[in-house]
Amino acid sequence: MPSMLEPFAGDAASPRGFRAAGVHCGLKPSALDLALLVSQQRATAAGVFTTNKVQAAPVGYCREIVTAGTAQAIVINSGNANACTGEQGRRDTLEMARTAAQELGLARDQVLVASTGVIGIPLPMAEVLHGISLAARELQDSGQRAAEAILTTDTFVKTCGVRLNLAGHGRPVTVGGMAKGAGMIGPDMATTLCFLTTDARVSAPVLKRVLTQAVDGSFNSITVDGDTSTNDSVLLLANGAAGLPELTSGEALDAFTEGLSWVARELAKMVVRDGEGATRVVAITVQGARDVGEARQAARTVANSPLVKTAIHGAQPNWGRLVCAVGRAGVALDPDRLRVWFNDLQVVEGGVGLSADLTEAARELEAPETELRLDLGVGSDRATVWTCDLTEEYIRINGSYMS
Amino acid sequence: MPSMLEPFAGDAASPRGFRAAGVHCGLKPSALDLALLVSQQRATAAGVFTTNKVQAAPVGYCREIVTAGTAQAIVINSGNANACTGEQGRRDTLEMARTAAQELGLARDQVLVASTGVIGIPLPMAEVLHGISLAARELQDSGQRAAEAILTTDTFVKTCGVRLNLAGHGRPVTVGGMAKGAGMIGPDMATTLCFLTTDARVSAPVLKRVLTQAVDGSFNSITVDGDTSTNDSVLLLANGAAGLPELTSGEALDAFTEGLSWVARELAKMVVRDGEGATRVVAITVQGARDVGEARQAARTVANSPLVKTAIHGAQPNWGRLVCAVGRAGVALDPDRLRVWFNDLQVVEGGVGLSADLTEAARELEAPETELRLDLGVGSDRATVWTCDLTEEYIRINGSYMS
Repeated sequence: MPSMLEPFAGDAASPRGFRAAGVHCGLKPSALDLALLVSQQRATAAGVFTTNKVQAAPVGYCREIVTAGTAQAIVINSGNANACTGEQGRRDTLEMARTAAQELGLARDQVLVASTGVIGIPLPMAEVLHGISLAARELQDSGQRAAEAILTTDTFVKTCGVRLNLAGHGRPVTVGGMAKGAGMIGPDMATTLCFLTTDARVSAPVLKRVLTQAVDGSFNSITVDGDTSTNDSVLLLANGAAGLPELTSGEALDAFTEGLSWVARELAKMVVRDGEGATRVVAITVQGARDVGEARQAARTVANSPLVKTAIHGAQPNWGRLVCAVGRAGVALDPDRLRVWFNDLQVVEGGVGLSADLTEAARELEAPETELRLDLGVGSDRATVWTCDLTEEYIRINGSYMS
Repeated sequence: MPSMLEPFAGDAASPRGFRAAGVHCGLKPSALDLALLVSQQRATAAGVFTTNKVQAAPVGYCREIVTAGTAQAIVINSGNANACTGEQGRRDTLEMARTAAQELGLARDQVLVASTGVIGIPLPMAEVLHGISLAARELQDSGQRAAEAILTTDTFVKTCGVRLNLAGHGRPVTVGGMAKGAGMIGPDMATTLCFLTTDARVSAPVLKRVLTQAVDGSFNSITVDGDTSTNDSVLLLANGAAGLPELTSGEALDAFTEGLSWVARELAKMVVRDGEGATRVVAITVQGARDVGEARQAARTVANSPLVKTAIHGAQPNWGRLVCAVGRAGVALDPDRLRVWFNDLQVVEGGVGLSADLTEAARELEAPETELRLDLGVGSDRATVWTCDLTEEYIRINGSYMS
């Protein structure tokens, strides 16, 4: 990370001109379940959305708004995904936006909407609309309660912030964010919900480009169970309140992209760390691939293999399962040039197991964060995907949670 | 099933002219671990093999033999996969074939070889060769001990037989088989080990065609954990010992194909029933698809979803997870025409949940065998994939088994 990026304990309300609220309105028995995130001025907006063909009502709605390119507020409820709810669901999303707009004195089309929770049950709208009114009166400079209100099976709040001292600009720019997610996490989509804010000034098309780049290396590079949801969305608002000139290209935009990517990656890794039942986070790195796409595909296949994930859980240095998973990833590899490492300990050379000290390898796997690295032997490109172990607790959670 | 097919409690030694043996040679602590399957006369041979790019030594060896088209014996060891063992592994496979050929008085190239078990450890050849000598002296008319000797984490022996009274032929033809497999089961490959025999007379090219067809609807239509192995092979020997004319086309060949498919499917379903930690078998049927390939792809995606598999385990009528999984399957579907059934109970119509009795749906899931059926609403083709639930026991087995 270049010296101009300064991480801090921030959140989505940290950039200048953003406020947030989190309230309880009755979608969950007692926890916070409705959040508002508001910019004091109109912001450019960008979004990345689920690629699932079954999409919750708010996803289609937000897609239209970010295509237009501006927004000023986001209303989010947890406890109910408003998915598979048909025409009623679409009407309810619009009604949420309309009510938030009224309370905040905005045009309806400046309000984005996101929902997360159980699928297939209509939103209890009386509670939701009451929650929006409550939240509009409780806006504050901290985004912590909002970050709490968007959680479902998560066990901790996920927020992050970074200050950027861009070369040639006097004042800093801030990027903040919050995310939710613990299960139903898979790549190829924005994966779960994440809301990013910045007080930089960036046009909508450029914002879309840098967001896509940030999501590629973060939310599209993690997996908990390979399942991906009907509601996944990453939304980004840039309100320009830092008072700096527009970032259009060059070093300053690069630094901004890097800062945004850093926040997105930190939030994504928090989601893996909070993976349902997870006790370990593992970075699966595939190198020696023909191209980055194949490296990522191979890393994802390994990262999603139940046999690899249970081996990690048992701290078993079972490289046979890694090799087996990468062999079915559908990418180019040379079986006779495969190499495998557990952190810095090499266990496979030329496709054959080294008589490595497997006790040492098992110890490497007992660390809370490990890197498993495979070299495919056919190129020079690489990619990393973060995953967690698969545990009995995952089964217990998902054998009883109705989502 | 047409009336000409008569299932019976047979095995791979049931067809005329086949004998088999299973012995203990020391690859496993005390269980049977080496099997021989021998035809009294030269047979035509066909095989379907793993599509994994990392392949155990015996796979490449068998591929060459079935390309030549004839074989007379199969030697199989469990307890060690002879995978990721490099040049030494290839030499060991040849040595196994050579020793079996010597003991049986055959040419080396008439002996097929298969291995299953732990990856990455060289075969203890002294034990294996001793086992082959032992087995050659213990050939018998029952294939039960051989079927036991090929198991790894399996909890029961998997054998099956069918007699076919082919129209216009006086004497019956018999098809028999044995399989192993409990974990690392995924489609897109022959999936684990299966050995099929018949006393019909069929040329090698026709044999290959009917075997591929039988495997498509059986071993390529099951999944336990989506992981697929370095060793998966289905081998079929047809020795003509029933004394009937060669089956080349028409009704008799169709009936033979159906009988073979029936045996393969029964064995494949036994593998799912024995899925590591499994307590339930579920048939996932996808209908209303654009074509059979897309129907199968959608069914596989649902069948491999950890969230679906844990819901089945908890007997949760969680149709949201089914819809979510099918939405990411990468096949054509109409979200507003989706329909879902648990057995005969419809729970989704037009993409929206019916106010169905979910208590009744939960009861449906408690049966040892259930059908979950989804209609994609875009065509008329269908496919079924069999899967099992994902349980805490799966985690326990794979968190500690070094394979």
